[in-house]
Amino acid sequence: MSTITLLTDFGLKDGNVGVMKGVIWGITPDIHIADVSHYISPQNVPEATLVLRRAAPYFPDGTVHVVVVDPGVGTERRPIAAQMGAHYFVGPDNGVVTMLLEHIEAEGLPISFIHLNKPQYWLPMVSNVFHGRDIFAPAAAHLASGVTLTELGDPINDPIRLSLPKPVRTENGYHGQVIHLDHFGNISTNIRREHLAGKTVQNVHLCGVDTSAMVVTFGERPSGELVALFGSTGNLIVSVVKGNAAYRLDAQVGDLVKVFLKG
Amino acid sequence: MSTITLLTDFGLKDGNVGVMKGVIWGITPDIHIADVSHYISPQNVPEATLVLRRAAPYFPDGTVHVVVVDPGVGTERRPIAAQMGAHYFVGPDNGVVTMLLEHIEAEGLPISFIHLNKPQYWLPMVSNVFHGRDIFAPAAAHLASGVTLTELGDPINDPIRLSLPKPVRTENGYHGQVIHLDHFGNISTNIRREHLAGKTVQNVHLCGVDTSAMVVTFGERPSGELVALFGSTGNLIVSVVKGNAAYRLDAQVGDLVKVFLKG
Amino acid sequence: MSTITLLTDFGLKDGNVGVMKGVIWGITPDIHIADVSHYISPQNVPEATLVLRRAAPYFPDGTVHVVVVDPGVGTERRPIAAQMGAHYFVGPDNGVVTMLLEHIEAEGLPISFIHLNKPQYWLPMVSNVFHGRDIFAPAAAHLASGVTLTELGDPINDPIRLSLPKPVRTENGYHGQVIHLDHFGNISTNIRREHLAGKTVQNVHLCGVDTSAMVVTFGERPSGELVALFGSTGNLIVSVVKGNAAYRLDAQVGDLVKVFLKG
Repeated sequence: MSTITLLTDFGLKDGNVGVMKGVIWGITPDIHIADVSHYISPQNVPEATLVLRRAAPYFPDGTVHVVVVDPGVGTERRPIAAQMGAHYFVGPDNGVVTMLLEHIEAEGLPISFIHLNKPQYWLPMVSNVFHGRDIFAPAAAHLASGVTLTELGDPINDPIRLSLPKPVRTENGYHGQVIHLDHFGNISTNIRREHLAGKTVQNVHLCGVDTSAMVVTFGERPSGELVALFGSTGNLIVSVVKGNAAYRLDAQVGDLVKVFLKG
Repeated sequence: MSTITLLTDFGLKDGNVGVMKGVIWGITPDIHIADVSHYISPQNVPEATLVLRRAAPYFPDGTVHVVVVDPGVGTERRPIAAQMGAHYFVGPDNGVVTMLLEHIEAEGLPISFIHLNKPQYWLPMVSNVFHGRDIFAPAAAHLASGVTLTELGDPINDPIRLSLPKPVRTENGYHGQVIHLDHFGNISTNIRREHLAGKTVQNVHLCGVDTSAMVVTFGERPSGELVALFGSTGNLIVSVVKGNAAYRLDAQVGDLVKVFLKG
Repeated sequence: MSTITLLTDFGLKDGNVGVMKGVIWGITPDIHIADVSHYISPQNVPEATLVLRRAAPYFPDGTVHVVVVDPGVGTERRPIAAQMGAHYFVGPDNGVVTMLLEHIEAEGLPISFIHLNKPQYWLPMVSNVFHGRDIFAPAAAHLASGVTLTELGDPINDPIRLSLPKPVRTENGYHGQVIHLDHFGNISTNIRREHLAGKTVQNVHLCGVDTSAMVVTFGERPSGELVALFGSTGNLIVSVVKGNAAYRLDAQVGDLVKVFLKG
């Protein structure tokens, strides 16, 4: 049984996520559907690109990832689909693929994008406000059930890419940014393990505080201590042991982070 | 594989939704289960009737919709089930079917209701406070696995119906009500596209403000602008482009909405 | 098709729950996955042990329950798995099994625990911060697909147990504690039906108020009234009819509850 994932900013109150599942199973019943998140902040495409990048590689080959954060619904923005390595993507052309695409490009895997412009693979009636239900869910269901990308639409080679902030090398480290605050209040930055090139972190400065407590895991320090470590997808994170660092530091996405390296 | 949907006011913290899935899969493992919503406001049957009406038609024929918003659990209120066209319903007899039932009646499709009064299709032990687990989940599982409605209980023809507010025709438009505030803060009203009979909206008044910005989709206007449009299920909605209209206008379900038509 | 359940404190925003499903379906696609809860309070193992105890018995025989509330991730705490009667458990060795284990022991059913120490059943790369993804999801998937407990690791007989507060018999009743506040604001206590031994409750005192309104179900009393009753898993609960008792009484887990019995 193959898998479709759903990643949206719809929330879980109004029934819209359930409706997408109904549409999918109406087209192809023999499929698993996994919710990745429906609590992306409204219209926040950069947040969704990060969550997609972190989640997609853990799904089986052939998974179709439907990502609908869609402030441009009903306008000229294109509905698109893609193959990126062993994974498929369906959603509005808004740059949400950026981080996953960069990763697949770095791996040298095959990539192809199409414009979803064949209405025979959509619901018969298409609204101007809910393409997740009317276009993306049905297109994903057809894709997962064996319809090919080229049947779903015409090739394109100019999907939108976000211009995402990259860390800047300084004399003795990096300047980066806060890119995510998770459910536990861990503060994730765009400085990654591979930026260090074997050097070790001496000190991390953000939101007016410093920490030199570089650890491997949370349990090394007592509750309440501010620590820095590498998260489960390789980003430098700042945490409070058994506490909420985002709340304590009043951290916001976009805040400056300075990392000082040893030697 | 057929589908059961779950729509409740249980929230997602306490494990009760998971328990219903355990009961269902214990009776009939070969079934999909879709969560429609578990964030109906506690005991709010009118909210659930709207979510059910909007979601159910997008599920495959034969889907069983379990709707448990049940302040009367354990009292004399009847547990019921129904066939409404190609869809099935299981839940307490509290009027939650009203809007879906009116829709199915308008389509002229077959309808039948039964009183769930055959305990052999329930769990062996029935509590006084959680019939979602003890009666409705098992009854839905049996229904989805091929047990007929008439095996599950005796026919009834008097399911409870809610008295829902209808828009009132005025000299130059309609007076209606706010019926839903969604995750994005879109304000949904009970004035529908078919009420206009070909006329166009000149102005919408609610919560002390007016908008004449009748649009087809959100992206036509700049961020922050107040607009009116028809939502994905045909209701007139009032929105702030990339913003939260419910919050800005302090809108509440039940608020008066005045629509003025052109010509 | 067999079932895996997931119970964590991960929340639903960051995609981590979806990632665990991707890992599971990548190993064994022919499986149902049920979310029990992902809103356990961060690091709150006692809360999770109660939710697990209440939910697990309603799942089919052979279900694998993955419970990850894991402040000790990456430290010396053991990853473990167990068979408890007809159910399986996978998670960190933190005492979260305590209540379910006591129940299975009381039933006299077979119990065996193992230390998950065979990395060939984990993901190839194991992080120091997300064993739900790297160890527990893959181990559960292998277990559900037919790998035996003894293949997954070496036997142990000293799983950690929580020391949970028990009600104390008094001259005319019990002193107990608040152990859970649910989505509706019902206040659950650790005083259970079997403690009463046939006697009836005269009065319940907690949070500075008293109620003698012992009912069988909510609908017996008018909205707003404070009542006491036995919940769906046999614990004494205090509720406000169609209201929120936890909010009204400002109740907290751990608050003292005094029950006075008749005669």
